[in-house]
Amino acid sequence: MLKGIAASAGISIAKAYKLESPKVEIVKKEGDPAVEVEKFNAALEKTKKDIEGVKERAAKRLSEEELAVFDAHLMMAGDPEFAGQITSMIENDKVNAEYAADTVATQMITMFESMDNDYFRERAADIKDVTFRLKCNLLGLTIPDLTAIDEDSIIVAYDLTPSDTAQLNEYVKGFATSIGGKTSHSAIMANSLEIPAVVGCGDILSQVSHGDTLVLDAVDGVVIVNPDEATVKEYEAKAKAFAEEKEALKVLVNAKSISTDGHEVELAGNIGGIKDVEGVLKNGGEGVGLFRTEFLYMDSDHFPTEDEQFEAYKAVLEGMGGKKVVVRTLDIGGDKKLKYFTFPEEMNPFLGYRAIRLCLDRTDIFRTQLRALIRASVYGKLCIMFPMIATVQEFCDAKAIYEEEKANLIKEGVAVADNIEVGMMVEIPAAAVLADQFAKYADFFSIGTNDLIQYSMAADRMSEHVSYLYQPYNPAVLRLVKMTIDGAHKEGKWAGMCGAMAGEEYAAPILLGLGLDEFSMSATQILKARKIINSLSKKEMEEVAAEALNKQTADEVLAFVKEKLAK
Amino acid sequence: MLKGIAASAGISIAKAYKLESPKVEIVKKEGDPAVEVEKFNAALEKTKKDIEGVKERAAKRLSEEELAVFDAHLMMAGDPEFAGQITSMIENDKVNAEYAADTVATQMITMFESMDNDYFRERAADIKDVTFRLKCNLLGLTIPDLTAIDEDSIIVAYDLTPSDTAQLNEYVKGFATSIGGKTSHSAIMANSLEIPAVVGCGDILSQVSHGDTLVLDAVDGVVIVNPDEATVKEYEAKAKAFAEEKEALKVLVNAKSISTDGHEVELAGNIGGIKDVEGVLKNGGEGVGLFRTEFLYMDSDHFPTEDEQFEAYKAVLEGMGGKKVVVRTLDIGGDKKLKYFTFPEEMNPFLGYRAIRLCLDRTDIFRTQLRALIRASVYGKLCIMFPMIATVQEFCDAKAIYEEEKANLIKEGVAVADNIEVGMMVEIPAAAVLADQFAKYADFFSIGTNDLIQYSMAADRMSEHVSYLYQPYNPAVLRLVKMTIDGAHKEGKWAGMCGAMAGEEYAAPILLGLGLDEFSMSATQILKARKIINSLSKKEMEEVAAEALNKQTADEVLAFVKEKLAK
Repeated sequence: MLKGIAASAGISIAKAYKLESPKVEIVKKEGDPAVEVEKFNAALEKTKKDIEGVKERAAKRLSEEELAVFDAHLMMAGDPEFAGQITSMIENDKVNAEYAADTVATQMITMFESMDNDYFRERAADIKDVTFRLKCNLLGLTIPDLTAIDEDSIIVAYDLTPSDTAQLNEYVKGFATSIGGKTSHSAIMANSLEIPAVVGCGDILSQVSHGDTLVLDAVDGVVIVNPDEATVKEYEAKAKAFAEEKEALKVLVNAKSISTDGHEVELAGNIGGIKDVEGVLKNGGEGVGLFRTEFLYMDSDHFPTEDEQFEAYKAVLEGMGGKKVVVRTLDIGGDKKLKYFTFPEEMNPFLGYRAIRLCLDRTDIFRTQLRALIRASVYGKLCIMFPMIATVQEFCDAKAIYEEEKANLIKEGVAVADNIEVGMMVEIPAAAVLADQFAKYADFFSIGTNDLIQYSMAADRMSEHVSYLYQPYNPAVLRLVKMTIDGAHKEGKWAGMCGAMAGEEYAAPILLGLGLDEFSMSATQILKARKIINSLSKKEMEEVAAEALNKQTADEVLAFVKEKLAK
Repeated sequence: MLKGIAASAGISIAKAYKLESPKVEIVKKEGDPAVEVEKFNAALEKTKKDIEGVKERAAKRLSEEELAVFDAHLMMAGDPEFAGQITSMIENDKVNAEYAADTVATQMITMFESMDNDYFRERAADIKDVTFRLKCNLLGLTIPDLTAIDEDSIIVAYDLTPSDTAQLNEYVKGFATSIGGKTSHSAIMANSLEIPAVVGCGDILSQVSHGDTLVLDAVDGVVIVNPDEATVKEYEAKAKAFAEEKEALKVLVNAKSISTDGHEVELAGNIGGIKDVEGVLKNGGEGVGLFRTEFLYMDSDHFPTEDEQFEAYKAVLEGMGGKKVVVRTLDIGGDKKLKYFTFPEEMNPFLGYRAIRLCLDRTDIFRTQLRALIRASVYGKLCIMFPMIATVQEFCDAKAIYEEEKANLIKEGVAVADNIEVGMMVEIPAAAVLADQFAKYADFFSIGTNDLIQYSMAADRMSEHVSYLYQPYNPAVLRLVKMTIDGAHKEGKWAGMCGAMAGEEYAAPILLGLGLDEFSMSATQILKARKIINSLSKKEMEEVAAEALNKQTADEVLAFVKEKLAK
């Protein structure tokens, strides 16, 4: 049994699919040439078939241009010179096939790499890839290929990259990773795909073998390897109960989010683009509380044009059918880079040139996005917010640019909605502390807890050495949240939250008590959050929150809230 | 006239000394062998003399071992093979001396560098250095050598490194640099040396020639190049007035720091070691508010032993003669590295493994320092503070280790003072926001404004792209300062500040109004700060501070305070 962090709730029982590059060890042996040549030919044929299979499955999601690499690999695998040299070596030196393949390939790679020419360096890469497959086939090792999964599986990996998660198909019933936390990429993807995930399981790769049966309990954050029959039964029942509970939550899809004493709040979803809109609606989202527009930029090979952006924003606004959509303007920099833009070298990119700082410097980029947004405003209910605002001056500067472009568009005769709200992310401590002043200018706040916690604690949550300081329940963080909400209300504005914390079981009650107006989260968290909100008394939660704010540590807060809710 | 930032107050008029490596351009020419050989011999002789001169002057501050490099250079310059090859080339190819020197040296360097051997690589470095001097002498270019300055000079440089500032002698009457801010290394050194400095002058190197007369006005942050006679007169008068004012301040050396309505505060100095103690006392410091112990570690080639540290702490405590000394435990990491310790690779070191985080992980290092401090406690009035405290848990953990070591020492029969105070730096937003809770455990707070501002604004002040966000007068920063002071007072504890802000003309009045108990700054700022404090009414400043806290921007706060003080 392995402990980890339940990052996307659910329970699965299935075979383990280890996503791990096999370790290839080549040992020189004497071999019967006839036997070894036959082995080699068979492995080469299999290699060609493997590449064709990967190409075929990849064709569903890659462009012609991107698929070209597989053709290059097939050409190399079919090159008579390549096969000929290996066969000769087997026959002349009487060595085993994998040794001959490795030796011939290494010579060719060295030769190609030594040439100062991109074409030959690409060929070297092709030989490496093909030879790796060839050696694995000779040694009977399996190269994982997520697209080839065709039976129910739980993926076990060190971590999942964005390109890994893009390949997951319907047979993937969950995953368990060595590293990561609730806000890591893989956790966010699991939530969005509605599959259970346990992350941060440590040494799981050495404890699980390919094909082991796994129980993945992403409610309690546990992975059980090769469970006995009784355990399987127990978890089948638990999975059933979970599915039933999930099903039962569906009655809340069209319900209001309202406390037992009649205080209504709004539960919204976080999205990365139009593909996520359906999930928000299906899960009863009352709006989009965070549209992360950086994906438009990161998935492109150029700064998206005004028209490209307009289409993307229009699609989301229309898709949400008049429900509120809060769009965050470009939040790039830090760990989010673009292929086609060079960021300055900085010692601490999280404290550097990013988000609104970049936009106020490169107003050309900013104006293009604002124009696209303002043009799309007539297709729904648009709220625009600026990320990483630290000073009132920055907000006013950004707002002024927005007003200019709005006036320009009106002058150009473009239809513009008259109910656009312009607000800001509160994710920098200075903004939270001075919220009452910011609220004189901003139409709304949305608290970004990931960054707010990171800066408040001066700890990069990506650094394993200090990730223990990422404490959503730290009373200091809660006080900053309170300052933000109180600041907004003082000026009659609304305050939301679009960080991971908004949907958490023990955070939502405190946030309700602090008076948060809008809770935005992963679509899959919404119904559970609604059930929680609808079971609580706002007045009681006000008392709980007030007391939590005077605790000394995150652990004390969490224990206190759990105790209060248990009553 | 160039504008910059006045980083160390004062006014000087002197010749410019450009600290800039000359650009050596070698052009191949035909030459008369007799003439060129003579030129070469003369330049080689001068080169040897130059190296001897540098060695002699460096001998005052370098160890025998460190001086050995100059002997290696002298040997190379005296090598008959080296000189012989150059002479042969001049005679055979009839080329100019600098071309021959450059060609021969390049061949030798290439040969030595290609050998996989440290000894030869060092020889390659020696040849580079010697040949550079030789070529400069042949071309009539001067290599700057700060130790050789023997007339009143103002140094003009891109920036000054710690090793540059270590070489400054009594003829250096100030410096002007292209980059830097009030808290940069060069600014801190200028203050400590009590010489005027204007930093952040931009393109000054291209505007000033070696030997130009400069007016350095480090009161208004201005550098005037080749001033006319009237300007010189004007600034001579200004310099005289400044010196007189400085002299006049001396009457305050033994005065109390007390507002017009009788509220007394403490003005203390920041130090890096025993060498700075005299400056603090001479300038009327009532204590040391910050002893940066990291220099003990950074100037060593090993973790300083308990005894080494004990001697250093004892010297400072005795030197201060019973006045309070606040020692900050090891604050390493971020941009402060050690030669003998490998820090983990982190994407954002300022948000990473540093200071108390490292000490709570590597308690062996921490315990050694605490033992040395506790042992030294009987030689004066010791206060210990922990840097980068983010959570109450961290403070309690650090304090527990302190208590353990104190108990151990007592058990060992070591004398220990019974009045040691154990406090913390408040430099992380979460600590400021939760100060009332921290104050239940900490004996005192010392606000570190450099980091507090950096984290509150989520902006690395070292990054030129976001350094505009380093805003001490931002109302959010002032509110965090207020929370810290109020938190301390609520529990009957005292609050100090050891950041650059504490000594600033327009910040000190606000801090007095907010109730700050201790102001710690560069020694040279103390008397001026005392004059300011002694001219103000605490009650009036309370009103000023309260109003400043409700401004919206740093500019508004500064304008408001200036206006109030002008009345």
